[in-house]
Formats: sequence, C-alpha cells, structure tokens
Amino acid sequence: MLGPVRHRPHSEKRKMQDKNNRWILTAQCPSRLGTVDVVTRFLKEQRCYITEQQSFDDHLSGHFFIRTEFRPEAEGFGAEAFQAGFAERAAEFEMTFELTAPGTRMPVVIMVSKADHCLNDLLYRYRTGQLPIDIRSIVSNHPDLASLAEWHGIPYRHFPITPETKPEQEAQVREEIEASGAELVILARYMQVLSSEMCTRLSGRAINIHHSLLPGFKGAKPYHQAYEKGVKLVGATAHYINDDLDEGPIITQGVEPVGHADYPEDLVAKGRDIECLTLARAVALHVERRVFLHASRTVVFDR
Amino acid sequence: MLGPVRHRPHSEKRKMQDKNNRWILTAQCPSRLGTVDVVTRFLKEQRCYITEQQSFDDHLSGHFFIRTEFRPEAEGFGAEAFQAGFAERAAEFEMTFELTAPGTRMPVVIMVSKADHCLNDLLYRYRTGQLPIDIRSIVSNHPDLASLAEWHGIPYRHFPITPETKPEQEAQVREEIEASGAELVILARYMQVLSSEMCTRLSGRAINIHHSLLPGFKGAKPYHQAYEKGVKLVGATAHYINDDLDEGPIITQGVEPVGHADYPEDLVAKGRDIECLTLARAVALHVERRVFLHASRTVVFDR
Amino acid sequence: MLGPVRHRPHSEKRKMQDKNNRWILTAQCPSRLGTVDVVTRFLKEQRCYITEQQSFDDHLSGHFFIRTEFRPEAEGFGAEAFQAGFAERAAEFEMTFELTAPGTRMPVVIMVSKADHCLNDLLYRYRTGQLPIDIRSIVSNHPDLASLAEWHGIPYRHFPITPETKPEQEAQVREEIEASGAELVILARYMQVLSSEMCTRLSGRAINIHHSLLPGFKGAKPYHQAYEKGVKLVGATAHYINDDLDEGPIITQGVEPVGHADYPEDLVAKGRDIECLTLARAVALHVERRVFLHASRTVVFDR
Amino acid sequence: MLGPVRHRPHSEKRKMQDKNNRWILTAQCPSRLGTVDVVTRFLKEQRCYITEQQSFDDHLSGHFFIRTEFRPEAEGFGAEAFQAGFAERAAEFEMTFELTAPGTRMPVVIMVSKADHCLNDLLYRYRTGQLPIDIRSIVSNHPDLASLAEWHGIPYRHFPITPETKPEQEAQVREEIEASGAELVILARYMQVLSSEMCTRLSGRAINIHHSLLPGFKGAKPYHQAYEKGVKLVGATAHYINDDLDEGPIITQGVEPVGHADYPEDLVAKGRDIECLTLARAVALHVERRVFLHASRTVVFDR
Repeated sequence: MLGPVRHRPHSEKRKMQDKNNRWILTAQCPSRLGTVDVVTRFLKEQRCYITEQQSFDDHLSGHFFIRTEFRPEAEGFGAEAFQAGFAERAAEFEMTFELTAPGTRMPVVIMVSKADHCLNDLLYRYRTGQLPIDIRSIVSNHPDLASLAEWHGIPYRHFPITPETKPEQEAQVREEIEASGAELVILARYMQVLSSEMCTRLSGRAINIHHSLLPGFKGAKPYHQAYEKGVKLVGATAHYINDDLDEGPIITQGVEPVGHADYPEDLVAKGRDIECLTLARAVALHVERRVFLHASRTVVFDR
Repeated sequence: MLGPVRHRPHSEKRKMQDKNNRWILTAQCPSRLGTVDVVTRFLKEQRCYITEQQSFDDHLSGHFFIRTEFRPEAEGFGAEAFQAGFAERAAEFEMTFELTAPGTRMPVVIMVSKADHCLNDLLYRYRTGQLPIDIRSIVSNHPDLASLAEWHGIPYRHFPITPETKPEQEAQVREEIEASGAELVILARYMQVLSSEMCTRLSGRAINIHHSLLPGFKGAKPYHQAYEKGVKLVGATAHYINDDLDEGPIITQGVEPVGHADYPEDLVAKGRDIECLTLARAVALHVERRVFLHASRTVVFDR
Repeated sequence: MLGPVRHRPHSEKRKMQDKNNRWILTAQCPSRLGTVDVVTRFLKEQRCYITEQQSFDDHLSGHFFIRTEFRPEAEGFGAEAFQAGFAERAAEFEMTFELTAPGTRMPVVIMVSKADHCLNDLLYRYRTGQLPIDIRSIVSNHPDLASLAEWHGIPYRHFPITPETKPEQEAQVREEIEASGAELVILARYMQVLSSEMCTRLSGRAINIHHSLLPGFKGAKPYHQAYEKGVKLVGATAHYINDDLDEGPIITQGVEPVGHADYPEDLVAKGRDIECLTLARAVALHVERRVFLHASRTVVFDR
Repeated sequence: MLGPVRHRPHSEKRKMQDKNNRWILTAQCPSRLGTVDVVTRFLKEQRCYITEQQSFDDHLSGHFFIRTEFRPEAEGFGAEAFQAGFAERAAEFEMTFELTAPGTRMPVVIMVSKADHCLNDLLYRYRTGQLPIDIRSIVSNHPDLASLAEWHGIPYRHFPITPETKPEQEAQVREEIEASGAELVILARYMQVLSSEMCTRLSGRAINIHHSLLPGFKGAKPYHQAYEKGVKLVGATAHYINDDLDEGPIITQGVEPVGHADYPEDLVAKGRDIECLTLARAVALHVERRVFLHASRTVVFDR
C-alpha cells in the first residue's frame, strides 16, 4: 500500500528471515514516459543491486505501478538520504513511494468476535515468524478469545457492543487503533457491521475476510445462501475495507469444492481452512508490499 | 436424470468403453425405511453383482437417491424382465428408476452461436469416444460453424433469428429437437435468451454453460462485470435449464485465477478452457447417470 | 481401517457434532455375489435407516469394500446385539467389519520432533472439536514443544534418542503407545527413521506425513531435492506406515505451485500449509472410517 | 528462450491480438550492478514506454533475467537500429537478448504418433489465433493423423520408423525441421525415444509433454506406474528436451486428483485434459518469451 512518503527509523527494525539484506521500494504514479527509468537509474546511482522487480502499466486507468527489491552494495547506505534523494526525482512524476527496510514488522491490530480459526492461524504465523507482523493488540466485542491472546502475550481489549452503545464502542476501537500505532487493521471474522464513518477512516488500511466469493453472497450467512443456491464451490474473499462494506477492493480469493452431502453447517466447517489461508495470504501480500490500491482495484505483484 | 420408467431396446445399443459389461440402475424416492434394501435385494435375486454403489438421503428435503453399477451373472439377463420385475417393488416406495445398458450413447442436440470452443471440445470427445453421446444435429442461429459440423459428419441446422422471428425460430428449434429423438440438449454458448415457454419445455433435459460462478454475474458479459469488480478468480457454471434463466440447478463449476494484468478480453480468453472443461464434465456426469435432479438442487454421485 | 470385530462400550462415548445420531458400519471381504445385500438386508431387518452408503468392488484384486452411515429407528438399539447378529451373516462372506457409534473419538498418540506446524494444526482441530480424536499423549525426541502440549492439557513424553539408544527409545515409545490405548499413531513431522520392527508393529495404524509427492523425492530433504530438479509443483503425501518406509499405502496428497523465485527455504515455508492440510485431511478420513486398507493400496470413500 | 541476437524482418510479421502495439525485449547475463538500468535507460532514450516488466536475479547461480514489454512512442521506430544500438550496451554486460515484434508468430514443427488429443488441442488454439504459432508441418511416425492435418491445411510428413531405420528416420525428421525454418519443435505425444544426438541438437528448442509429475514415473507407461503406487494425484510435465531424456528443464506442470475407482485406463483418460492444458500453456509461455533457460532450470515470468 502506498501512502505518503514515510520513514521508519532503522533502530526500530528487527531482522527477520533476512535473505540477502533486501530492501523494498514501491511506487505508483500516472503513466508517463520514463516511469521505470526514474526508479532504476536512481538505484544504479546509489549502487543498489536490484534482485527482483515487477512493474505494470494499466492502460485503462493510465496508472503505473512498480515494486523493486534491492540490496545496497555501497557501505553506509542510509534510508533517510535515499528517501530525500529519491523524493526529488519522484516529484517530477507525481510519484508516491515507500521504502521498506529489511526485517520490518508491520504493527497491526486484529479484530475478532467469537470464531477463532482465523485468529489462531494468524497467531501461529506470527509466533513462528512466518508473517512479519507486530501484533499490538487484539480487539473484540466478546471476551471469549482472551486466553488465546494471553498465551501469546498479546493485550486483549474487550469492548462490548449493543445497538445503543455502538458509537461509543467504535470510539473505543478507534482510540485503541490509534494509540497502538497500528498501520494495518485485520478483521479476522469480526462480526459487527462497521459504521460508514469507521469504514471511511479505515479505508485502504484494514483487511477483511468475507466467507464467500464476493460479489456473490454479500451480507450475512453466506454459506447458508450458498447452500440454498446449490453451488458446487464455496470460497473466501480478502479485501480492503472502503465505504461500501463487502465491496472494497479485492486482494485475493480462495475456493473449495463442495457437494450435495454438505449441509449448511458442513459448508461453514469446510470454509474455515480456506478463510484462514486466504486471509493469511492477503496479509502476507500486504506486509511484503505486494499490493497496490488504485481506485476500486488492486494490483498484486505476487511471486 | 430420472424420468419415468423407460426402456431402451437392446438392439439399439452400441458397446463402447465397456468395462466389465456394466449396467447402471438409478432411482429416487421419498425417504423411508428399506429404500436401499428394495434395490439391493432385487439385484441379488436377479444374480446381479454390484460393482459400485452410492446412495444419499437428504434429511432436509426427505428424499433418497441411489446409483448402482452392476454386472449380471446369470445367463440371459433381460432388460425388459428386469424392469418389469423391479417396477413392482419400486411402486411401493413411489420410486422412479432408470436402467441403462452398457454402451448406451445418449442422443443429443447441441446448440451454438458463433463461439466454437465448447463445440470443438465436445466434438473431439465425441469423435474419440470419450463422451458416450450420439450427436443427432447441431443447431445454430448463425451459419459460421457449419464446416466444423460437416467435417464430423453431423447435420447442421441454421435457424436465423431476429426479434420479430423469435417465436418462429424457437418453433423450428423445438421441432428439430423432437424430430431428432434427443434426450438431452446441450447449450454450448448459445447466445440467445430462450423464451420462458422454451425453458419450461427443456427443464431438466438441457444443460447450459454460463461463463461465471453463478449466482455471481448473471446475465450478459459476465467477464466484463468480473473485471469491473476486480475479482481474482473467474469461473464457469454448468447447470440445467429451468424456468428461471441462469438460476437452474447447478451440476458443476470450475474456476481459474486471474490478475490485475488481465483486461476484460484476457478474461474472455482465459475463461475458454474452464468453460470447455466444465461443460464437458457436466455432460459426462449426466450421460453416466451420476446427476439427480430434485427441486432446485442436484445430487451428483461423482467418482 | 478394518481390524477384527471390536466393540466400544457405549458409556465411553461422548456425543460430538452428532448429526442425526449416525452410526457407521464398514466392512470388506473377497468379491462374491450378495456382498451388498448381506449388509443392507441386515440393516433393514434391524430397522436401521441408511443415510449414506458407498461400495466399491476392485475387479483387479477381487475385493469388496462398503461404508454405511445409518440411523437406528427401533427403540433400544444395542451395539452388542447388532454386532453379534451381523457377525453370523458376515462369517459366510469372510467379511471383516467394524461398527462405530455416534460421537466416538478415536484415541491417538501424536509423535513430533521440533517442527510444530502440523502439531499446532492438529491441536487446533482437536480443541475445537473439528477432528473427533482423543489425544492421549504427545511423544517427542526433543523437549521443544512441551509448552504447546501443556497449554492444551495433554501429557508430553520426551524420549531423547541417540544412535546408541535407539532401541531403548523405541521401546519407550512402544510402551507409551500401548499404555495410552491409542488406536492410531500420527507422525506429525517426526524426524526419526523408525526401525523395521517398529514399522511392522505400527503397520496400518500409523499415519505419516511426507513432504513430497511420493514416490518422488523419497528420503531426506525432499524440498531441496525438488529445488534441484526445478519442479513447478511441490506437495505432501499422507500415508500409512508399513515395513517399507516412505512407501506405505497413500491416503491423500496435496499440491502447491512454486516458481523460480522460490529457493529451497521458500519451498520449505510454502510446503507447511499443504503438509498441515494433507495430514489433517488424512486423519479426518481415517477417524470417519472412510479409508480401507488392502494390500499396498487404499480405498477412500470421500464425501 | 534467448539465443544469439536475431532479427525478424518486419515485413514477415502478421499482426495478431495486438494489444497496444507491444514489443518484447528479453535478456539475460551474469549478475552485476546495473543490469536493469542498462535495459531501462536505453528504452527511455529510445522513447519506448514500458507497459510490463519483470526481472529476477538468481543469487545461487549468479545470473540475471529480464523481460520487458514496451510501446515505442517515437515515430519511425526501427527494429534494426534498436538492436544495433542495444547490442553495444549489452556487450559490456555479456548480455544476450532478443527483440520480438508485435504479432510475431513463431514457426513450429509438431511431432506426433497416434494419440491426437494434444495435437487436436494445439490445432484449435492455432486455428483460432489463441496461440501465435505458425505450424510449418506435422511430422509423424504413423499415418493416422493425416486427415486432421489436412483439414487444417497443414503439410503432414509421414516418416515410418523401425529399429533398423531409426537413424535414417531421424535424418528425415532433422531435415524437415531445418527446411521448415521452425524455431521450436513441439513433441505432442511423440512416442519414440529420440537418439542422444537428436536430443542434443534440439536442446532448448524442443518442448516435450510427459504424462507424469516428473521426476516421478519416468519412462514408459507412467499412468500404469502411478496406479501401481496407488497415488491420489496424477499429472503432466512440459519440459525442454536436453541430452537426458525426461530430465530436461521443466517449464510447467499440471495435476489432477484420482481415486481408487480409477483403473490404469481411467488414469490414461483422465490425464488427457491435463496433458493438453499443460503442453498448450508451456508453448504459450515459450512463444510469449516468458521462459528463460539457464543450465538445468527455467525462469518463467508468468502473468
């Protein structure tokens, strides 16, 4: 995701699964001759060796996207100097960019209700270092999953909700997200409809998992809807939140075959694995800076 | 599919891919103690050896389905005597059934417009005997695919259509289907909306391929709709025709991953393979008597 | 798996995900006219309603397999009487069978080394009741995973091993398995080669997960072997242990696409999910009595 | 595939599925600072707009690969001048490269025996323009598929073979390939073992489809081998020919689930679809210049 130019102080970074000391530079801008050259020429000048690069120009929207992994070859490579230098070149192209240091763990808040399969899966990947995230807290409208959080040593914030207290509860959630320093909110089967204001506020920096192949079966009880229609495939969709719930830009989707012997409760059970995998995959793509958001669509530079 | 008790005269049957001289008996009825026993006891009495059997009782609809492959061990096994005998037993259970002899090729009519990928695929499977169908004719509202039909030695009926002549054209199609003796109509990308009357007439005995994961993206240009939504999976749905177009009972579905670099025309191209495979698979399931239709749902005894 | 006729006292059984009070009867015997009838007639006589049934006759090996789910409709259905009665009928067909009551949880021992992904996954499915197993203990040659076991309240047996103490360690493992009452041993990435004697002893009642698409890449470091060969798919194989390690009868296999940018360590990481899913799936198939072992092959009546 | 610098005269090129007038530049060389820059700077200087770019540096082999699609923005873009200019820059990096004009159809020879499923599939994609190849001739050791070739208007060369005439037959094949001007040979289920000399000659410019997940089940009758082992997945492998038959660099692989009810002949039948799709996919990747061959491995810049 590309926001404004940001800098993460190097001292904060822990090295993790550090293959070849790789930095990541991502950028996007309107289409214009020289968009790739402005990036690669600067990297060459800075003596940065490009280990992997992908770029794409969307000719329908006239927008350009690039993701570069590189290894500095010069002694004393400095993020600040790099960013200052590149900002000058980028300005000419109205290019936004982000530089990510090796071993960066993205600070996140996870939101849940009672179902724990996605949370359990994320915690495992977090605990073993597979997913470079730093879980600042787990927020829930129910107390049920507190002990799971506790075993992983993560603060658990229980903010109950009723129709009357919804605005207050959302204010608590907002405050927690802001205080935590989270750059990403993961809705891991959080079963409350967010207010339009909350959606707008989290737009582009919250990932939700919906248990259907959106845009099919929006809204509640998608597996029961799927059973009614007699579908032979069910699935899950990980997408960014935007102001239209269940319609935010899709990051990735997964699918699972089902049959006549699968009653609605079987679909729910069968769907759990694909929900876990699809959400974990979307979060991994996001934190590895492989997803670019532009209008209502994503560009995903997958491996 | 189970219609009323039918008998195919043995003399008409050609042997094809005949593994172990296998007959197929399919049946369905309301749930009631003894539904399996009434089938298997009769087969034992008739000295028929069951090589493969699947049964399912849908506890939500209270309906029972069974499919049996068997090999007669007695000399002089006769289809007529078998059916007459079993009809007596079945009556008590309000059971409908169908007996299918080894090597039966189902007579079909294929309907197409201009796109030839599904037709080409079906013709290949037909020509090589992979798909035990007997294509009586190919019906189209365009002349384009006549030479493909001709090379395979299959009559091609060109019935042009305009908004004004739609009723007349449908009458021609109906007549052709009836005259041909087809038991199944395959809509292999026939791009005309059938009238409600035609749908009702073909209900349960026509298979359509829709190029989306129904019920998502009903109607026209589903790949363009899919592009607009930025989905990461496209698919195809093979379903029976019923009175609600694009809503008939689903037989099987296929899926294909897509990405940001796939423009609408790329989705169309990528979708072709999955459309071919999904339609061919549905037709194979149908002609092998693996699909049971009950209300708006199917039971599919797949291998 | 079909062993000798066994009976589980009803008092021991806990009800779990009990849809419709379903019992399971599985059986196998040499092919012979009447194999299905002997099962279904008896069920009818006992007023048992069959909700799902699958049978298969392997014409190459001349062997027959059947799995039936049923719901007793008579008051006072008794497992012992049922088994005694059916044993008489089965004897004539040299048929072995097993009756499984609703809600049965199979007692198991899980064996691990240091890698915890498969264990973590099994524990989650166990804890949430998705997998009807009763984990009696976790056995390991390393102490690393003790706290994970402890959090789930499961005894952890640490039996260290060196080349010199291998026989003694295996004796300890054997004793633990026997004392625990386990009917199934799950090798969830246990990284020791079992002695031939141990393999024989566990033959057919231990499931191993091998991290390759067997029979490709047998032995150690399969992902490194796969990288060397430049394959574009990696996978995992869940199989029964028999006397030839890595060659036991296959239950199920999973697959994952990989590419040129995946170095050996990436293959290891990518393989974890498919290992978890494949092992969990094999265990579920086994405990639901969907797997039949005959010579070096399995028959799997999947849903 | 990157051979020596070549130039295809523009007059020979037919425009086909020409989205945005896209040229392709592919290159590879030993890893060294500036490998990307040397390409992108030149493109910028030539006023070429990059629409899609992928690069990869293999840190184990120390080799670099890049593929660029671009649209010339300057009037009077000339391939010869471009190549001459770029050759100078490339020399410094020991970089080999290839420039491919929009609408280029690669000249190919297809080799077959009796099985026609892969040939039929390739011919369909060729006839409809999905696969930008120019089939110069079809070579076979059997006469069976002549009429299929004829219907498509393609010369069919029948070169029979016996153990005694093998060298002469291979000479005929060689001559045909050379005379045809083919840049690629497609072995679409050609059932003769090529001589080591022939393999060497075709090394890197012939694609074979093997009906197993290599390196499992090398050699003859792979589906029968797979049946013996009781595998639950079968597959197909498309690979370049090199001097070690069935061991050439893998381009892509496909997979298909199978079960206990699939006898060897069923595996053969089930495998056909996946063979067709896998071979067609490999050929498409190759002609779109998405495959790079280096030592015994491939780099595939897939979409």
